[in-house]
Amino acid sequence: MTRRILTVTLNPAIDVTYRVDVLRPGETVRVPDVRSRAGGKGVNVAAVVRRLGGESLVLALTTTRTPDEFRDGLDGLGLAHRLVPALPAVRRTVAVVTRADGTTMLQENGFPAGETAEAGIFAALRAELSAGAGAVVISGSVPEGLGADVPARLVRLCGRHDVPVIADVSGAALREAAGSGAVLMPNEDELKELAGSGAEACQDLVAAGAPAVVATAGPDGATAVTARGAWRARPAEVVTGNPAGAGDAAAAALAVHLSAGGVSEVDWPVALADVVATSAAAVLRPVAGEIDVAARERWIRAVEVERIR
Amino acid sequence: MTRRILTVTLNPAIDVTYRVDVLRPGETVRVPDVRSRAGGKGVNVAAVVRRLGGESLVLALTTTRTPDEFRDGLDGLGLAHRLVPALPAVRRTVAVVTRADGTTMLQENGFPAGETAEAGIFAALRAELSAGAGAVVISGSVPEGLGADVPARLVRLCGRHDVPVIADVSGAALREAAGSGAVLMPNEDELKELAGSGAEACQDLVAAGAPAVVATAGPDGATAVTARGAWRARPAEVVTGNPAGAGDAAAAALAVHLSAGGVSEVDWPVALADVVATSAAAVLRPVAGEIDVAARERWIRAVEVERIR
Repeated sequence: MTRRILTVTLNPAIDVTYRVDVLRPGETVRVPDVRSRAGGKGVNVAAVVRRLGGESLVLALTTTRTPDEFRDGLDGLGLAHRLVPALPAVRRTVAVVTRADGTTMLQENGFPAGETAEAGIFAALRAELSAGAGAVVISGSVPEGLGADVPARLVRLCGRHDVPVIADVSGAALREAAGSGAVLMPNEDELKELAGSGAEACQDLVAAGAPAVVATAGPDGATAVTARGAWRARPAEVVTGNPAGAGDAAAAALAVHLSAGGVSEVDWPVALADVVATSAAAVLRPVAGEIDVAARERWIRAVEVERIR
Repeated sequence: MTRRILTVTLNPAIDVTYRVDVLRPGETVRVPDVRSRAGGKGVNVAAVVRRLGGESLVLALTTTRTPDEFRDGLDGLGLAHRLVPALPAVRRTVAVVTRADGTTMLQENGFPAGETAEAGIFAALRAELSAGAGAVVISGSVPEGLGADVPARLVRLCGRHDVPVIADVSGAALREAAGSGAVLMPNEDELKELAGSGAEACQDLVAAGAPAVVATAGPDGATAVTARGAWRARPAEVVTGNPAGAGDAAAAALAVHLSAGGVSEVDWPVALADVVATSAAAVLRPVAGEIDVAARERWIRAVEVERIR
């Protein structure tokens, strides 16, 4: 039985896409094609979980003002949500897409969370854990106004409900979350900052208390290290496209495997192949939060997984 | 007596400024410093009129949704306004400011105006003309949903109230406005598209019914052509800075002169020196709608004006 996956987004976004012919620094360009949608890493994870056949719920902070473009955007995507209005506004990310230069991303840091944000997000997660959850994914940055320890403390709340958690966070929040009991999903830069390079660094994090570490390395695939063993998976082919959202797709795939029976029940070679195939299938899509389902099905059988310990 | 100047903005904007270290196409940049304000050319004109000691009123379309960031922004700037809610949203312009490359502008085209837009803006202008106005400035683009002849028809409405009008519009709207009785303020590109180059092209537009044509040429100054004569003015020094808003400052300066007694009473050498000095004083300020008042005072006496016909 696949159980509901909760995603937590402390720093939501309105993802705006500008399609233009050319972007030249110092010049003016008219933008005839403007699209926007609800974004933030947890939103992307929830969208991919649904594409994988799972049930998801977006838990997120949002603006205290109405109308709430973020809430409307989630409704537009058909994603279930439980929102905590505690931000003065929802930040924007602007992706300027050109044919020649690919995508230029302008990411606003976000607005400071209000005083009610922390209690609100803990209460929302507690209520949804009580209602039943198979796994939780905590993704993305922590807005000003919330401590860097909030993701780690949310992980511990999940632990008290015996629900497995993935923490896809970075910087100080990742250091705080490292010993909290969460499965960690650092990319190469985050891993280096936290513990060094390669499988040995992952092993150190497992020794320090992480039930599993899945280190993602873009086109080089991913490595999973647990107390029961370590595996490396490489994609069957090199995929070019939009890397935004590949990490979120990887987290969604792993969350589905975790939700079946917790960390101890995961069949790691199978799960890691899924992580790599789903991540590559996200690169084929121009928008974060989407995957090419047919490509994933094809690749999931072709990914090479080797046991490395 | 200086009388109230009405500015008309059919395609308002929220002007967002992102200050970043560097902008490289194809890369991701975090934006720690986000500022936004009410924008659109008519808003800039109204703000400069006020800096020149005049009284202004912003007449503009705005969003039908609340809260209205554009309305709040005008209130924040302390600009009087009469707004017609008839747009699904107010477009954004994003100025990405870096030290190395200056300002990169991303200008959304805007959202289509609703069915009530046209009647609403005519009714608003009619009411404010009846309440008394010294001059009207119609600036900027026409949103989808409104005909390109709307600025020309607004000019004619002002004519029926004997109020002089500046039309700072472009493309099809400028062609429509050319014979409507408005003072025209084309830049070099707009003039070329409409009638050709230089004072002769301006003369053709005057022969076709424009009471005056003031052609602006950035650092080269400006030319004024009327049935009574023609003058050229050059700035006293070359100014480097932010050219956005220089044309709006020029329109504001000319509007103040027009508001004193109509086109026939304008002292053109004096007015043209003011147009050039005020425009250059806008270049010194990082934000459109502002001018360096001290620089204007200094330059207004130093601008060279020659009679060319």
